[in-house]
Amino acid sequence: MANEINTMTRNEATLKASIERLLENKRYATLKDIFITLQPADIAAMFDEMPEEALPLLFRLLPKELAAETFVEMDDDAQELLIHGFSDTELKEVVDELYVDDAVDLIEEMPANVVMRILRQADPEVRAKINEVLKYPEDSAGSIMTTEFVNLRPTMTVSDSIKRIRRTGVDKETIYTCYVTDDNRKLIGMISIKTLLLADEDEIVMDIMESNVISVNTLDDQERVANLFGKYDFLAIPVVDGENRLVGIVTVDDAMDVMQEETTEDMEVMAAITPTDKPYMKTGVLETYRKRIPWLLVLMISATFTGWIISSYENALAAQVALTAYIPMLMDTGGNSGSQASVTVIRGLSLDEIKFRDLPRVIFKESRVAILCGVTLALTNFLKLMLFDGVGLQVALVVSLTLICTVFVAKIIGCALPLAAKKIGFDPAVMASPFITTAVDAISLLMYFQIAKVFLGI
Amino acid sequence: MANEINTMTRNEATLKASIERLLENKRYATLKDIFITLQPADIAAMFDEMPEEALPLLFRLLPKELAAETFVEMDDDAQELLIHGFSDTELKEVVDELYVDDAVDLIEEMPANVVMRILRQADPEVRAKINEVLKYPEDSAGSIMTTEFVNLRPTMTVSDSIKRIRRTGVDKETIYTCYVTDDNRKLIGMISIKTLLLADEDEIVMDIMESNVISVNTLDDQERVANLFGKYDFLAIPVVDGENRLVGIVTVDDAMDVMQEETTEDMEVMAAITPTDKPYMKTGVLETYRKRIPWLLVLMISATFTGWIISSYENALAAQVALTAYIPMLMDTGGNSGSQASVTVIRGLSLDEIKFRDLPRVIFKESRVAILCGVTLALTNFLKLMLFDGVGLQVALVVSLTLICTVFVAKIIGCALPLAAKKIGFDPAVMASPFITTAVDAISLLMYFQIAKVFLGI
Repeated sequence: MANEINTMTRNEATLKASIERLLENKRYATLKDIFITLQPADIAAMFDEMPEEALPLLFRLLPKELAAETFVEMDDDAQELLIHGFSDTELKEVVDELYVDDAVDLIEEMPANVVMRILRQADPEVRAKINEVLKYPEDSAGSIMTTEFVNLRPTMTVSDSIKRIRRTGVDKETIYTCYVTDDNRKLIGMISIKTLLLADEDEIVMDIMESNVISVNTLDDQERVANLFGKYDFLAIPVVDGENRLVGIVTVDDAMDVMQEETTEDMEVMAAITPTDKPYMKTGVLETYRKRIPWLLVLMISATFTGWIISSYENALAAQVALTAYIPMLMDTGGNSGSQASVTVIRGLSLDEIKFRDLPRVIFKESRVAILCGVTLALTNFLKLMLFDGVGLQVALVVSLTLICTVFVAKIIGCALPLAAKKIGFDPAVMASPFITTAVDAISLLMYFQIAKVFLGI
Repeated sequence: MANEINTMTRNEATLKASIERLLENKRYATLKDIFITLQPADIAAMFDEMPEEALPLLFRLLPKELAAETFVEMDDDAQELLIHGFSDTELKEVVDELYVDDAVDLIEEMPANVVMRILRQADPEVRAKINEVLKYPEDSAGSIMTTEFVNLRPTMTVSDSIKRIRRTGVDKETIYTCYVTDDNRKLIGMISIKTLLLADEDEIVMDIMESNVISVNTLDDQERVANLFGKYDFLAIPVVDGENRLVGIVTVDDAMDVMQEETTEDMEVMAAITPTDKPYMKTGVLETYRKRIPWLLVLMISATFTGWIISSYENALAAQVALTAYIPMLMDTGGNSGSQASVTVIRGLSLDEIKFRDLPRVIFKESRVAILCGVTLALTNFLKLMLFDGVGLQVALVVSLTLICTVFVAKIIGCALPLAAKKIGFDPAVMASPFITTAVDAISLLMYFQIAKVFLGI
């Protein structure tokens, strides 16, 4: 029966409790019956929360294919634990059921001795495929592709093609898009199973295939590959080597994972955290500390400049202590204005909506937005200062003028720095709030004191 | 020939130039030959940059199906322009080629008079389907679903099913997952075309279908639907009504778009921007201003509190002006520490990795991370103050102690507020840096002056 997902989530805790009870009472047949009604991802999530010693037993209750699918979804520690408990035959069974890209993911996470054991158990053919994918750099298209795809020849008929899919399809990760290659393994076209099914049986592949195929190179960046899926609505994209020979495909589910990972990474970098690919709840305290402290230190030390600026105007401040009260407001508003611009540009860059050549247009637009925002904020602030804070006209003028200048500088720095970073090959996400804030703080304080000098003669 | 995407992007400008030249010389046949080698998304991007008056002419060069696919990818303004230029017959041709979900997207963006014209031209059957989808609230599963899917009956054989797909599949958005319903249109199973193709021709659908189907309700939030795709690697997910009757499906390409939109929205909210679904380069200055100014105003006014705190310690500051120099550093470090925690938790919440019930564990973890970070920062800062800034031991102690407290408070507020927001049904992303910074500023200043009072007796 089709369950609504809401119901399922609500019952997660209940389900876990009944499974623990069944396990205690050794009701293994019932447990098995429950497992086969669940999705692999859900079984894995439940297993991850079970006591370690129960894991091997529970895992052995799963039918072979479901076992492999569940194994892929489990976290590294649980996988390692299970592998240690596996006999060689059991290990072989799981490894043979894995798709190549999943086997590679597994191998990349395991310690060397476990990797050796996995590779020893894999079929020679599977081992060759795994090694093929392992040779590509991390985060490249080659490293996330699978080498299992349906390959057709241009001279085949539709009915030959369907026969071939029937014969070999069971081991392929996707059969929905088939690729057509020539005698030299060069990619010359693609054809969807939809086209094949809707065509006459004796039509020739060459005549009905799509010959304008968008492909990626093995060394292309995985984020770029994921963006292509978003742009063109593909279910799979072919991966070719330098000679345009087809070596693998990336499927949409992997592209989706890459998209989520890259977004998380962007957000972490934007919040001054060294990115990690572990979920928060599974990262230890020390690891979290190590990911966060370097940037905090760097940014704290950079704030020394703002300290110097204030110290060098110490006498002026002593004469006009009222000015100090507005330092936090100026700094925060500058930081917020700057990060509005920088986050917009960073996101536009990662979605490929903004390119470096747009720099002049972006700066022109941000200047106009900055003037509008600056003037609105300054007027509001001026009224507030005069009516509620009861400061003198001159102080109100100094604060409000600084506000306009700060917002302007913040927006320009905020939009220009990510574009500049991208141009010189840095990650634009680094140029987000924390960095911008530190830069804008110093500049806005300098402007504040300079403007105060003119108006208040301090 | 399969092009590498790199080459394609590099040649974008060249391509645009040659198309303009061909258009000038009225070489329409050549233009058509070029267009049919391109992807709809790329043609649309190019059309969006062409002079308005050339658009109808260029669009008419496209073959019917490519025309509809390109139309879907164009921006609102260009779509509206084209529709105004269309004859009724032309409009009908485009609308009939659209998938229902794309037609609904179009209608939601167009002004009322254009909508009337579109609906008038649509087939009665298409119009009924469009109206069906239009009735669901924005951002619900119902509003992004398509009502065109392959529906099988449990008693059909595999060969009947394949025949049915062959007969009706051409109009369906996806034929890769077929859904099985009973006499009351209730969803009772699903079967992939892979299973059908690999099965014997006379097997019965009921015997080989997957009967544990995960479905969503028409009113479920679209972000939740998109997350299910990430979790379960589906190509499509069925949408059912309150009585478990199948009313539509959401396909992976639409889920991917939702995922990107929702991420952009999260990032905008986190940077204190009212979210918009228009790309940055297509948003006007005034619109950008309107999206940014409310939050800047609110946050500026909130900074009044920090101003008050400083004012009320004016005399203390006048006596110890050195303290002022460290205000920006304390505020920035607090803000950065807080946003590290809040961004991590916000992202964990949108990926469903963190739930409200994790609150105590999250707080416990953040406290330990906070103490480690706080102590490291305070020690570094203490050394810097004593060795380089040459301040007195007491000032150094006050600043360093405040640093520890600030980091601690910032991390706790940073992790707890997004969870609390989620619990009471607010968007957790609002509780990101700008908001946290404003809150932490006030608290850290209060602590600063209190600690200073104790140590410096001011």
